Amino acid sequence: MPTYKAPVEDVTFLLNDVFQIDRYDNLPGFSDASADVREAIIGEAAKLSEQVLQPLNRVGDLEGCVRHDDGSVTTPKGFKEAFKQVAEGGWLGLSAPAEYGGQGLPVTLSQVVTEFQSAANMAFSMYGGLTMGATAALMVHGKPEQKKMFVPKMVAGEWTGTMNLTEPQCGTDLGLLRTKAVKQADGSYKITGTKIFISAGEHDLAENIIHLVLARIEGAPAGIKGVSLFVVPKVLVNADGSLGQRNGVSCGSIEHKMGIHGNATCVMNYDGATGWLIGEENKGMQGMFVMMNEARLGVAVQGLAQSEVAYQNAVNYARERLQGRSLTGAKDPDKPADPIIVHPDVRRVLLTIRAFNEAARAMVVWTALKSDVAHRSPDPKDRQEADDHMGLMTPVMKGVMTDVGFSNSVLAQQMYGGHGYIAEHGMEQFVRDARIAMLYEGANGIQALDLVGRKLPRDGGRAVMAFFGEVGAFAKEHGGNEAMKPFVTPLSTALGHLQQATGWLMQNALTKPDNAGAAATDYMQLFGLVTFAYMWARMAKVAQDKIASGGATPYLSTKLVTGRFFMERMLPETSVHLARIQTGCATTMELAAEAF
Amino acid sequence: MPTYKAPVEDVTFLLNDVFQIDRYDNLPGFSDASADVREAIIGEAAKLSEQVLQPLNRVGDLEGCVRHDDGSVTTPKGFKEAFKQVAEGGWLGLSAPAEYGGQGLPVTLSQVVTEFQSAANMAFSMYGGLTMGATAALMVHGKPEQKKMFVPKMVAGEWTGTMNLTEPQCGTDLGLLRTKAVKQADGSYKITGTKIFISAGEHDLAENIIHLVLARIEGAPAGIKGVSLFVVPKVLVNADGSLGQRNGVSCGSIEHKMGIHGNATCVMNYDGATGWLIGEENKGMQGMFVMMNEARLGVAVQGLAQSEVAYQNAVNYARERLQGRSLTGAKDPDKPADPIIVHPDVRRVLLTIRAFNEAARAMVVWTALKSDVAHRSPDPKDRQEADDHMGLMTPVMKGVMTDVGFSNSVLAQQMYGGHGYIAEHGMEQFVRDARIAMLYEGANGIQALDLVGRKLPRDGGRAVMAFFGEVGAFAKEHGGNEAMKPFVTPLSTALGHLQQATGWLMQNALTKPDNAGAAATDYMQLFGLVTFAYMWARMAKVAQDKIASGGATPYLSTKLVTGRFFMERMLPETSVHLARIQTGCATTMELAAEAF
Repeated sequence: MPTYKAPVEDVTFLLNDVFQIDRYDNLPGFSDASADVREAIIGEAAKLSEQVLQPLNRVGDLEGCVRHDDGSVTTPKGFKEAFKQVAEGGWLGLSAPAEYGGQGLPVTLSQVVTEFQSAANMAFSMYGGLTMGATAALMVHGKPEQKKMFVPKMVAGEWTGTMNLTEPQCGTDLGLLRTKAVKQADGSYKITGTKIFISAGEHDLAENIIHLVLARIEGAPAGIKGVSLFVVPKVLVNADGSLGQRNGVSCGSIEHKMGIHGNATCVMNYDGATGWLIGEENKGMQGMFVMMNEARLGVAVQGLAQSEVAYQNAVNYARERLQGRSLTGAKDPDKPADPIIVHPDVRRVLLTIRAFNEAARAMVVWTALKSDVAHRSPDPKDRQEADDHMGLMTPVMKGVMTDVGFSNSVLAQQMYGGHGYIAEHGMEQFVRDARIAMLYEGANGIQALDLVGRKLPRDGGRAVMAFFGEVGAFAKEHGGNEAMKPFVTPLSTALGHLQQATGWLMQNALTKPDNAGAAATDYMQLFGLVTFAYMWARMAKVAQDKIASGGATPYLSTKLVTGRFFMERMLPETSVHLARIQTGCATTMELAAEAF
Repeated sequence: MPTYKAPVEDVTFLLNDVFQIDRYDNLPGFSDASADVREAIIGEAAKLSEQVLQPLNRVGDLEGCVRHDDGSVTTPKGFKEAFKQVAEGGWLGLSAPAEYGGQGLPVTLSQVVTEFQSAANMAFSMYGGLTMGATAALMVHGKPEQKKMFVPKMVAGEWTGTMNLTEPQCGTDLGLLRTKAVKQADGSYKITGTKIFISAGEHDLAENIIHLVLARIEGAPAGIKGVSLFVVPKVLVNADGSLGQRNGVSCGSIEHKMGIHGNATCVMNYDGATGWLIGEENKGMQGMFVMMNEARLGVAVQGLAQSEVAYQNAVNYARERLQGRSLTGAKDPDKPADPIIVHPDVRRVLLTIRAFNEAARAMVVWTALKSDVAHRSPDPKDRQEADDHMGLMTPVMKGVMTDVGFSNSVLAQQMYGGHGYIAEHGMEQFVRDARIAMLYEGANGIQALDLVGRKLPRDGGRAVMAFFGEVGAFAKEHGGNEAMKPFVTPLSTALGHLQQATGWLMQNALTKPDNAGAAATDYMQLFGLVTFAYMWARMAKVAQDKIASGGATPYLSTKLVTGRFFMERMLPETSVHLARIQTGCATTMELAAEAF
């Protein structure tokens, strides 16, 4: 049976040493998150994930969710009690404003907790994750009475939330959506249509479910400019806040899917359900983008989380499985065979996963801090820079961290040999669960297009130039430091590749958009590698400084070796991405559709 | 629901034009396989796979195999009838010797059929595949009376075969095996022990199952040198060939696994079962290697097969799914959206899969022809060269074709967006089924070690030198041909990388075996890329010649575009593999096992 141990030491190093969260004490909520408080929260989050959520992961996979004839849905055994514990522990409101019952702590802390919970039990953690996303959209775009009615209950985990975008004929292209909204005399709308792939669409964890639904108001323009956002509670809420009548929305079926069986992925039927407009008419995408951006970062963290838990189990197995002998002679001659961790090829795989995990975790903390700055800083320039960073990094993180998170789960499964294919070991579940993260919240090809087509050129390339400036300045500052050369030299080379690729796009994609399309995925992956390299260089610098000042620990030495592995073995891939990008679109676009 | 169409045109091009199978008419069985006969056989094989086996693929996944309390196992609905059709059609004996009831046709044809059947229904095709592997081992190492007793029934598909190697404590390291054999007065042995992961170990498709079992004879030396091979029929066979008593072997349980649910993966309990020695005492690995090499090539074909069927369905979906518009303006303005195949990123993915499939298929045909030469040629030099080729290419094909076959199934699934995660579309089954091929018959890390540690240095590097000579001569011959430059120039560069990597290993791995271990997987992948590039260059040459002589077809033009895509976008990866290999093992081996 798989196990999980939250990476508390790594998170603490990132928060305290690498990103020095205490420097942000001027931001609201940060002074409440002193080192002691952080330690206590992280410790509690670790315990909850390790002891309550992780043991339910396989149960969730085996049992899945069951829809009954009346449309109600039962979640796997133990989920209800665990969700109650999560709600009552205040975990859904960790970074929500105090006026809605939250604790107002930094989003950065909340993201750390998200990784733990998602690693322990991805399907389970989605119920809370979607609730937090829906809450965020309501807080930004909801009317005051909507916020008052829904948000405190959602922050408390008494009610949960969903996002309803996809329909059978439209996923990426939401302009094609058909769900209808008809305005009523009292200002409400009657919503009618079918939504698919609705995660947590129906369940027994909470007494109400607050659906955020995209629909087209009668007479609205065609396409994406005629789409509005509505809030549609499963159970109508009386003026006094008590629950009233059941609304006209129900779960028609649960999808049979590859993984995340513990989460109910529902077909939702809206049959004249009562809903209320959020934000303005025909401006539904604005509200939905708040949710989607939240969700995309959450999905990125899912990629990291599955990679982390799969890694931990692969390491345990590699240390325990006795098979064959080291190529350099028996390491454990008293035993019938050596543990397979003696083999370079096994270590190569383990280090490949680990080097990603630690860089990705740094990227999450870095970006979560920017999210806090963007939402809480009093300085408009800081807010703008942080917002630029978020916009640029969101598609990179969602695309790269879920791609690599999945392939790392596969690598970790491979360490088990044939046993990795057997359900009882749990490795194949990590693979099946991790797979969805590449597909939902915008398939990764869409992330790549968002990066190349939208985020890169936005504001004259301001965000990407700021990133190049920051990385370049770091390389310049530390390039002369002998100890840092194994990190800075490859970082500079890789940054050069990214800059060349960016220049190539500027010269070749404006006049010929297919050159951008043919380059998009390679560009995204190249961007991810450079960002990871930058994270590694920053971590290495801090680790070296701590060691130099007498603070050597096994954790810090391992950090430096893992970082060098990344630079030597993983980063060189940037040259191939650049070469591919520079081939352009000609061959890719040459064939007629029928020729495939 | 997924569909499958056997790639008849591609196979015909390879057999007739690229490898010119008619040149081998001097080999036994080849003159019986004239162009007409081949066409008829390939056509029938296609029909069987498309119409009988493919429709059972999802049924097999959904129903799986069921073990009953008496140890008997029921296969999914329809499997029994389909297996009868396969057996009666003579498909298991296509290339078996006529003296055992086979048709004596080239193995090359048989491998083509294997791809079709495996693409149509991987779990089903394993019942026949394992039978052919066990038959091969019996034919090479069995005593005359053993061959007479078992082989004709197996060739006819009346009985099936299995291979029993793995035990809970040993997979890769078979020297650890504990299953015991005790010699009886009549020359037979009593076999006792537990074997796990036994594919097709028990089922209802045939009236007898012939288990080939590795066990240790009482008093035999420890380790791999004390392992013998036995034939242990499920039902004992009387002297007249009729079935006698049930033997002491039974299925204890069926594994719960990620995929290939239609194949019964059994725990087999041997409880004093009667078996007979195959080959010599303590030389069991020799017989098992015959089977394993057969099986490894079969598994390589499974990788290709899942990639092919996943590709076909991804193409169909990409042509039908309307979503968004082309970056260069609407291509289908009368429809609500364009089909997603207009997008460069979609085509990039599809071409990536296709370019592998066609190169891998060429490699299968090329190597299958070598297998025929190795077994049938009257010329000892030809036999030796062919055998060298097989030894060298078997780990490359098994490792690379299953790695890429799996990752291509994932890419194809990605084309479906969220729908790819839904079971009904069948894409996620291809991914789950393809996953096993990287694990069984020697996990791919073991293939890489086999290549680097055994196959490369064998006979002073004779096999690899012959390969370098052949590819180098091709490049020299066609390097001056302008039309061939887009193929020959990158091929030469890639060959150079492989030669540098080989030289690096020779200089650095003999004294420091961990350098070989740390390089093994990259070397294998580099080797695969160069071989694929060579296949592409050969195919391009033949396609260009046919077009130049007035034989232009859409198939041939597509072939050339796909080949250029491979050269431009996929082959450049060789430089990164070389760079990784050259970093050596230092960083990889630096950490203590506890540090991971």
